[in-house]
Amino acid sequence: MTDVFDHPWLGGLFADAEMAALWSPDAQLAGMRAFEAAFSRALGRAGLAGTAQAEAAAQAIEAMDFDMADLRAGSGNDGVVVPRLVAQMKAAAGDAAGAVHKGATSQDVIDTATAMAMRDSLSLIDNRLATLTRALQALDARFGDAPLMGRTRMQAATEITVRDRIAPWLLPLADHRARITDARPRIARLQLGGASGDRKALGGKAAQVAQDLAAALSLKNPPRAWHAMRDGVAEFAGLLSLVSGTLGKMGQDIALMAQQGIAEIALSGGGASSAMPHKQNPVLAELLVTLARFNAVQLSGLHQALIHEQERSGATWALEWMILPQMAQATGRALEVAITLTAQINRIGTPE
Amino acid sequence: MTDVFDHPWLGGLFADAEMAALWSPDAQLAGMRAFEAAFSRALGRAGLAGTAQAEAAAQAIEAMDFDMADLRAGSGNDGVVVPRLVAQMKAAAGDAAGAVHKGATSQDVIDTATAMAMRDSLSLIDNRLATLTRALQALDARFGDAPLMGRTRMQAATEITVRDRIAPWLLPLADHRARITDARPRIARLQLGGASGDRKALGGKAAQVAQDLAAALSLKNPPRAWHAMRDGVAEFAGLLSLVSGTLGKMGQDIALMAQQGIAEIALSGGGASSAMPHKQNPVLAELLVTLARFNAVQLSGLHQALIHEQERSGATWALEWMILPQMAQATGRALEVAITLTAQINRIGTPE
Amino acid sequence: MTDVFDHPWLGGLFADAEMAALWSPDAQLAGMRAFEAAFSRALGRAGLAGTAQAEAAAQAIEAMDFDMADLRAGSGNDGVVVPRLVAQMKAAAGDAAGAVHKGATSQDVIDTATAMAMRDSLSLIDNRLATLTRALQALDARFGDAPLMGRTRMQAATEITVRDRIAPWLLPLADHRARITDARPRIARLQLGGASGDRKALGGKAAQVAQDLAAALSLKNPPRAWHAMRDGVAEFAGLLSLVSGTLGKMGQDIALMAQQGIAEIALSGGGASSAMPHKQNPVLAELLVTLARFNAVQLSGLHQALIHEQERSGATWALEWMILPQMAQATGRALEVAITLTAQINRIGTPE
Amino acid sequence: MTDVFDHPWLGGLFADAEMAALWSPDAQLAGMRAFEAAFSRALGRAGLAGTAQAEAAAQAIEAMDFDMADLRAGSGNDGVVVPRLVAQMKAAAGDAAGAVHKGATSQDVIDTATAMAMRDSLSLIDNRLATLTRALQALDARFGDAPLMGRTRMQAATEITVRDRIAPWLLPLADHRARITDARPRIARLQLGGASGDRKALGGKAAQVAQDLAAALSLKNPPRAWHAMRDGVAEFAGLLSLVSGTLGKMGQDIALMAQQGIAEIALSGGGASSAMPHKQNPVLAELLVTLARFNAVQLSGLHQALIHEQERSGATWALEWMILPQMAQATGRALEVAITLTAQINRIGTPE
Repeated sequence: MTDVFDHPWLGGLFADAEMAALWSPDAQLAGMRAFEAAFSRALGRAGLAGTAQAEAAAQAIEAMDFDMADLRAGSGNDGVVVPRLVAQMKAAAGDAAGAVHKGATSQDVIDTATAMAMRDSLSLIDNRLATLTRALQALDARFGDAPLMGRTRMQAATEITVRDRIAPWLLPLADHRARITDARPRIARLQLGGASGDRKALGGKAAQVAQDLAAALSLKNPPRAWHAMRDGVAEFAGLLSLVSGTLGKMGQDIALMAQQGIAEIALSGGGASSAMPHKQNPVLAELLVTLARFNAVQLSGLHQALIHEQERSGATWALEWMILPQMAQATGRALEVAITLTAQINRIGTPE
Repeated sequence: MTDVFDHPWLGGLFADAEMAALWSPDAQLAGMRAFEAAFSRALGRAGLAGTAQAEAAAQAIEAMDFDMADLRAGSGNDGVVVPRLVAQMKAAAGDAAGAVHKGATSQDVIDTATAMAMRDSLSLIDNRLATLTRALQALDARFGDAPLMGRTRMQAATEITVRDRIAPWLLPLADHRARITDARPRIARLQLGGASGDRKALGGKAAQVAQDLAAALSLKNPPRAWHAMRDGVAEFAGLLSLVSGTLGKMGQDIALMAQQGIAEIALSGGGASSAMPHKQNPVLAELLVTLARFNAVQLSGLHQALIHEQERSGATWALEWMILPQMAQATGRALEVAITLTAQINRIGTPE
Repeated sequence: MTDVFDHPWLGGLFADAEMAALWSPDAQLAGMRAFEAAFSRALGRAGLAGTAQAEAAAQAIEAMDFDMADLRAGSGNDGVVVPRLVAQMKAAAGDAAGAVHKGATSQDVIDTATAMAMRDSLSLIDNRLATLTRALQALDARFGDAPLMGRTRMQAATEITVRDRIAPWLLPLADHRARITDARPRIARLQLGGASGDRKALGGKAAQVAQDLAAALSLKNPPRAWHAMRDGVAEFAGLLSLVSGTLGKMGQDIALMAQQGIAEIALSGGGASSAMPHKQNPVLAELLVTLARFNAVQLSGLHQALIHEQERSGATWALEWMILPQMAQATGRALEVAITLTAQINRIGTPE
Repeated sequence: MTDVFDHPWLGGLFADAEMAALWSPDAQLAGMRAFEAAFSRALGRAGLAGTAQAEAAAQAIEAMDFDMADLRAGSGNDGVVVPRLVAQMKAAAGDAAGAVHKGATSQDVIDTATAMAMRDSLSLIDNRLATLTRALQALDARFGDAPLMGRTRMQAATEITVRDRIAPWLLPLADHRARITDARPRIARLQLGGASGDRKALGGKAAQVAQDLAAALSLKNPPRAWHAMRDGVAEFAGLLSLVSGTLGKMGQDIALMAQQGIAEIALSGGGASSAMPHKQNPVLAELLVTLARFNAVQLSGLHQALIHEQERSGATWALEWMILPQMAQATGRALEVAITLTAQINRIGTPE
């Protein structure tokens, strides 16, 4: 029962295959590989390594297999995978080893891979927000005029329409998409700083290497490394939790509407009970609440991690590793669930 | 020791007079009064009340004194101050009582006042971010070229410059200002919805009243009430914590630099010890860490409050009241402290 | 709107006068005064000060008035009130100043006062848990046999009795009382360590002074100072949140039972709406949810504060000051509310 | 990079094989299997099923293989694995299917398995606390008298000894062990309630079945099901975070002591850097800080989950699943790391 996103049976409830793929070890390794290959080539183009040597290094990096046991042992010993990863890459590059990782550091590799995962997560989320928007608009078109009892403080208030209930599920989605557009350039950024983050080892060619690398990896090229400026990571996490929070409100509303005695919604596909075969549990609606509360908790950790001391904090960096991929998956899954749940609504409004 | 921001002696450490003023009961009451007066006038202009009656109501609202004991008793009984507040306003308005609060509800009053406080807080924060930017730029101009040992994972790494250490304190400030610009229209928004948030009681005049009211109160006029869409509130809180987080990193760095044996910074104005008169404690640097961790904790609560059920959740609304003013004050104070602390830096860089 | 516990009108909803009194600046000052007076006398009895001098110092401390503006200025400058507090005490003691605070430090004073507040809070909570237990037992005696629809996953399940619904409100109260009994000696502990927490300045008399002081202040006498061991504080906070969490579940249940269409409970004393005079809002039930969520958020901060570096962390100590008094008040208020709410239940069970 | 505890390379840093085994899907399945087999036998002994039929059912349950794809599909559909798990068990039991799960419900199965995992986790933690206690006592015996600069507010204060620095790492361990002893009977409890938690389906035999089952599974037999009373789970989580918090303080201290310019500790086995071969990073010390902060964040979620509505909250139950196994593993790993790190200390005290 350790990781619900990748669990033999709980995965059936929590797993989001597309989002999981963006944050999987395979994707992480691919991201680090892409960074190092592009970095070798950039060294060559900048004249910091021979062109042929750089290309040979890049090709070796792209083609090599990794010794995973060694990466694991190295992570345990060094607190970070990159020293062993680079050692393996240098071994694979042979004579071209001098064009591998020269002037880069662990954060450049790992954070750039993370930036690519965040960038792609934003795209996936944005696409799903668009899909959910259309689904809720269709729901609104179908049932929006139906009467519904407005409920404030969990008490019947005045009669509203289904449209009024749906609006707070729907309207924030456009704001979330605008937030993603605003924030993307602050999140999808190349990390390149070298040893203490000052790019000194790249000398006068640092800017050129960075520009080249950013272009190759389709990332923004910030003025300097963000090793110790984690606000982009925290902002990304905040976006995730804003999205899952809106969906949590939708889920809570639907679970309340589905209560016997209220019966303002009819859902297909409810879950079974082991003790009561007659029940139709609003499983997906509840799951939206769970995922929202989970992200609301996790977000705190990524804001604690803003206190990233000096040029690199091993302690808070590792805290990001523990939390960020889970928040992305919780958000991805919440969007999937909301889309599915919307499609399961057979009726909505005051029962006749 | 209950509220550090308003405490006989801890206030000396935590209080930010300007930010406190924006969130004080007086400001809150002024905001609610402004809403109701403008609302009465808007009713008049929209023909939903007689023009003279509306103006009379507005003037009565603007001139009246409140019975605070009654407001307190009402808050305890109703969970919200507005029923009694409006009752007092109607009594003050006398014959014009019909032009008071007609078609509005508690959230309209309280949330609009909160939106004005958030708007003004953003301006105050933005101004202080600009001030701190200039202060750090001046620090950089004075000491930026000085050598400093880069430190990663709390270990000496490679030599950098003071400029490299300052950069992660300085560069995010511009991003924070951009975030404020991006988010302001999603935060500084009129709340107007009436009983269940559908503006029905205002009939065909709802849009006109809203537009009029938003203009009068210098707020954005969103397409509908955001009673049950709290993402603007959570986004505001996220901005606060991003700002205090950056400053917490600065504070942590300075406290580490001030250690004996490291001595990379010399500060004036350190705090005294009751047991050790020789000590110069980096009190303000530590305070930045405290405020950042505080906000990182609180933020979780405002994201939990996104799960705002149905047309109004009394439970989560009150949670916002408990947390939001404190986060604003913590952020305001952190900015004050960072500005003061920057001015206390007499020397920065590797000791000679 | 800054501090809901001490707010002109929100206090009507959130204030708990008895708990507020335990954590008020007055109580804090009284606790610090009691520590210093008892400490002076203990110095005298241990021969570390002249007996007459010690008694004179203690009496001066007990009789003096404080210059609050000076305490405030000192807190801002020193990060802690004690240096100025002690300076004022020494001035008041005059010739007996040598018997004031000699060998003690700021944490001894502040943490001992906090320990007394925690001790008294546990007693208040324990008493209220007993009162609430009796109230819920009486409710159970009156309505326990009545039928009620069991609800799982927010869906009607099988018929239960009111007794079954009340049990999870009632049974944990005994466990909470047992937890308080278990934890009290780990929480209500004298703090005495001196400058770096090693009691060195008290020499061979340290144990005697500590024993004397603990007896005088009715606190446990731990083997050494707990300056940098904050697990007692975090455990106290955990107890608070466990209590408020149980009450939050009770509040959530009652709010759900009070819904139209469900009507499993009839409450007197519900709150009014500014827009809908017919409504009876379950204000206190919602407030229980609010207070539980608030404490669940805050608890995270006190566990972050366990990472209390070296012999004293100014940063995390101040974080405790920001959070702890609020959690105590939220818990006290939740108990008051639960007792009141139980008395407001006129009927509970499936409506006839 | 999804789950650091079970990750191809990050597992080298984060994985605790023993604790992972207690919370693995295999252990979970074994726990649920043990519950159902013991439950069938208890039904037989209580006369609620034929004895032979009950034994046949139990043996079938013990011997069967599970269709994992079906369990996964069921979890996704039903929100919980038990309906399909029981269906598979009934199929395996054939004619004895009537003695399977009759009168039990999903929570009985899952929570009982979780209670066994919590019980075994407490034992593992307690054992490691004992080991760490001995290791720190040995460290104290070896270096305790050595001088060390006391540091308060990150500033040199007065000279202490190494013993004084170690004490706050060591002394809380005994308190943690006492806490475990106190809390174990509130945590390691059988869950048995049936459909709505009232044990009604077991009729007059409920108490006997519960007693029998608790004895068979080596769990406490509480007076009734704790379906909707989650304080034991939250208390368990609080214990975990208290333990990891103490270790986080130890890690923070060691990382600070290892700084160049301070050099109060010499460690073997430090981690390498990809850019700076000369560095010896205090990786394990930093990891203790990470794990402590992680748990301090997560704890908030389990206290939010105390607000467990009605007879079962699907939403908050699933939140426990997301968080609890990770907290257990973080704590287990922190203890392993602290033990290893203590053994890596070659010297501690003011450098000569």
